Amino acid sequence: MLSKLRPPLITLLTDFGMKDHFVGVMKGVIASIAPAARVIDITHEVEPYAVSQARFLLGQSWPYFPKGSIHLAIVDPGVGSSRRPILVQAQGHTFVGPDNGLFSDLLEAPHVKTRLISNRKFMLGEVSSTFHGRDVFAPIAGWLAHGVAASHFGPPIADATVIPDRGIQSSLGRWTGEVVHVDHFGNLTTNLPASCVARSDSFILKIAALELREISPSYSAMAPRAPAIVLGSSGFLEIAVNQDSAARLLGLGVGARVELSLE
Amino acid sequence: MLSKLRPPLITLLTDFGMKDHFVGVMKGVIASIAPAARVIDITHEVEPYAVSQARFLLGQSWPYFPKGSIHLAIVDPGVGSSRRPILVQAQGHTFVGPDNGLFSDLLEAPHVKTRLISNRKFMLGEVSSTFHGRDVFAPIAGWLAHGVAASHFGPPIADATVIPDRGIQSSLGRWTGEVVHVDHFGNLTTNLPASCVARSDSFILKIAALELREISPSYSAMAPRAPAIVLGSSGFLEIAVNQDSAARLLGLGVGARVELSLE
Amino acid sequence: MLSKLRPPLITLLTDFGMKDHFVGVMKGVIASIAPAARVIDITHEVEPYAVSQARFLLGQSWPYFPKGSIHLAIVDPGVGSSRRPILVQAQGHTFVGPDNGLFSDLLEAPHVKTRLISNRKFMLGEVSSTFHGRDVFAPIAGWLAHGVAASHFGPPIADATVIPDRGIQSSLGRWTGEVVHVDHFGNLTTNLPASCVARSDSFILKIAALELREISPSYSAMAPRAPAIVLGSSGFLEIAVNQDSAARLLGLGVGARVELSLE
Repeated sequence: MLSKLRPPLITLLTDFGMKDHFVGVMKGVIASIAPAARVIDITHEVEPYAVSQARFLLGQSWPYFPKGSIHLAIVDPGVGSSRRPILVQAQGHTFVGPDNGLFSDLLEAPHVKTRLISNRKFMLGEVSSTFHGRDVFAPIAGWLAHGVAASHFGPPIADATVIPDRGIQSSLGRWTGEVVHVDHFGNLTTNLPASCVARSDSFILKIAALELREISPSYSAMAPRAPAIVLGSSGFLEIAVNQDSAARLLGLGVGARVELSLE
Repeated sequence: MLSKLRPPLITLLTDFGMKDHFVGVMKGVIASIAPAARVIDITHEVEPYAVSQARFLLGQSWPYFPKGSIHLAIVDPGVGSSRRPILVQAQGHTFVGPDNGLFSDLLEAPHVKTRLISNRKFMLGEVSSTFHGRDVFAPIAGWLAHGVAASHFGPPIADATVIPDRGIQSSLGRWTGEVVHVDHFGNLTTNLPASCVARSDSFILKIAALELREISPSYSAMAPRAPAIVLGSSGFLEIAVNQDSAARLLGLGVGARVELSLE
Repeated sequence: MLSKLRPPLITLLTDFGMKDHFVGVMKGVIASIAPAARVIDITHEVEPYAVSQARFLLGQSWPYFPKGSIHLAIVDPGVGSSRRPILVQAQGHTFVGPDNGLFSDLLEAPHVKTRLISNRKFMLGEVSSTFHGRDVFAPIAGWLAHGVAASHFGPPIADATVIPDRGIQSSLGRWTGEVVHVDHFGNLTTNLPASCVARSDSFILKIAALELREISPSYSAMAPRAPAIVLGSSGFLEIAVNQDSAARLLGLGVGARVELSLE
């Protein structure tokens, strides 16, 4: 599936942080196997063990990469346990990581193919119990980029983990959701799709003690220090404050509950 | 202007931080348009909305890149407003970002050419109001790297924003300036060019309650815990403490006022 | 020694942090000299001036890169003083950085060749006293990647700095060591090799007021909130807490003393 005209592209999304050698070592393993592969970091600052945040960030990222890209996503509280390493082929992209719900959205895509990663021939010689990023996932991504077909890594499976993660429509015109990500600027991203409201709609969005009734066309159009809703770049409703941190001003973070009602 | 012998090089300088998908997604957009382009991060940890700091860091960086490089600099409090996206060609390099003073130094270079970025054909299909890095600037950089001439992106303009930013010579041998950057080690970089003083000069530099009269040849030549002036690598006067943070010890940061007088 | 079939690979390991232009500028210097070279960051978040931590991280990283790789390691409290810049060829890899003990482990490898870096022809035109990463080390790495033989950079030396850094075997079955690194997850890595204990051994590891007697096969196999020993991916004994930070829970960091006795 990889074009011969462009070098294979591998993205990395982890909770490994930037202060250790973890990410660099994974890149070394990949470069040793697939010297031509190019590696792009999505982020390594996912909150430790926050699978649902990683899933949100992955969903925001992969569609902007060329078909044939390989996406390594590793937020893996179960490393070393019996949780399975898997490989998911969907939408012309390949995803590699632990089977813990990270790939839920992709598993519901049409024509998806999912495999267990079980062939030790394509892992490092010695597999530690704590760093599968280096010993399992990076080598698999490297061999994929090198041109090895996915079928060599292990058998198809049909029971990969799917975890529901969107806001819930409780009745007509009413949704309940939560904050799934706080970005660098303190904007609160919810799991309520922007499509829940049209610009012409009259609605109330409740978060903590706050009731928001208007959508601002951009950050800079907001009144100073007043939280407002933005149809952010994510496709989901965001709560933001112009040139300030909504998370800090409202004292809210990931998991905060939101309710939306059309009027 | 891009050599056919080396892959086009794109640098990134933003206040987007490292915890989101923002930077990775921009690289995905670039890779989709210009697979051969190479992307180098300058930093994504500019203080949020700190245009003058970004300008300082850009000035410290671009001269070390090969001619033909494309520099994306995005610190953009006005995203989604009427502020203009622009493209500046100066000194054999191309700069892309918002028209908010970030490129002031370059706009005063000889033979500079500045253009409005207005041709939506070279932006993503849908332009959000909050993430022009992904929807406008990354695609423009990608198409530039792919070989599209700058003239395709929009018409020349002559009124791009220039903001004065250097220390001011108040009278012969006297300058007033400020701290424009605090680096990772806590060194305070001022906007007073090192050329204000020669090593032989007798002078006083005042910052907060402190009067400094000597230039240290290197960090390691300083007395322990004593703040001193260093002719830093930036070409500007820096106030530093050997193996410690001048910013923390002095309780000072960006914007702190400095006065220099030759005696 | 560099293969013609793959682009030369340069790794970077520094305490420069991510908020400045320092790392980006080094990459610009390298790209200007060796356009085909690929640069991979190990980390830039070594504690400022922490040579022994950098040494640990370097030892964890370089073996995972292909032979012929060039490793730039710069944690350099003595920059601008008389400390020497050196180049070490060992195990098929080349290491470049300050002579302050960073390369101790490599200097004891068989067939090692060490050189002073003294030929100013391969440094930037003007060498600052504070940023040898840009002015000395990056250009040397660039020229190496470009194919210049190491012998051009300076004469061989035989007295490069070696600093002892492992836990000490005080008597048969007893070792004294310390924590050399705290990773992003708060795991405490000691300098006691995992080979000190076999899984069947009965032993006591003392750290602060704690006595640990068991090795956990993985993080996820540990009891909640109970610190335990893991044979981490590093090859050294680590003290960890399942899904929590051992460093924070125990109030310990780099330098904390550990004692191990077999029973």
